[in-house]
Amino acid sequence: ADPKAGRQKALQCQTCHGLDGRSKLPEAPNLAGQVETYLAKALKDYKTGARKNDMMSVVAPNLSDADIADLAAYYASIEVEVKRP
Amino acid sequence: ADPKAGRQKALQCQTCHGLDGRSKLPEAPNLAGQVETYLAKALKDYKTGARKNDMMSVVAPNLSDADIADLAAYYASIEVEVKRP
Repeated sequence: ADPKAGRQKALQCQTCHGLDGRSKLPEAPNLAGQVETYLAKALKDYKTGARKNDMMSVVAPNLSDADIADLAAYYASIEVEVKRP
Repeated sequence: ADPKAGRQKALQCQTCHGLDGRSKLPEAPNLAGQVETYLAKALKDYKTGARKNDMMSVVAPNLSDADIADLAAYYASIEVEVKRP
């Protein structure tokens, strides 16, 4: 997967998810540093309809498998530091 | 919602999600610093069956609405710093 291509593709995601992966809307989750396989599965499920969401069910079907892999790689690659709770 | 009670409840979640909200398994997402409303909605959907997952569909139905609110508050409260991509 190509995180650089994913970053390019993420220009379409930034309104809700941000290019930095920090949510810009209360319904949208943070994606920064998320688990890559989890991100890919979420996008695949929105594409197949296994998972439904007003916004994502419209966006995901237009994504190719390569787009999905690249987007997952990009957002997973964003470095995140978790402070001790 | 009570993040402290959520932390107590999260003792049951730590095997996959960690008490620090950093995923311990490739299928499990990171929860640290996630959007609180998103976390609550995910748990509610797993509880009602609107969203399905082998593990979560078993775990979530045992959670009360208060548990869900407290868990969402706890994991959302974990401080996370996103480094500039």
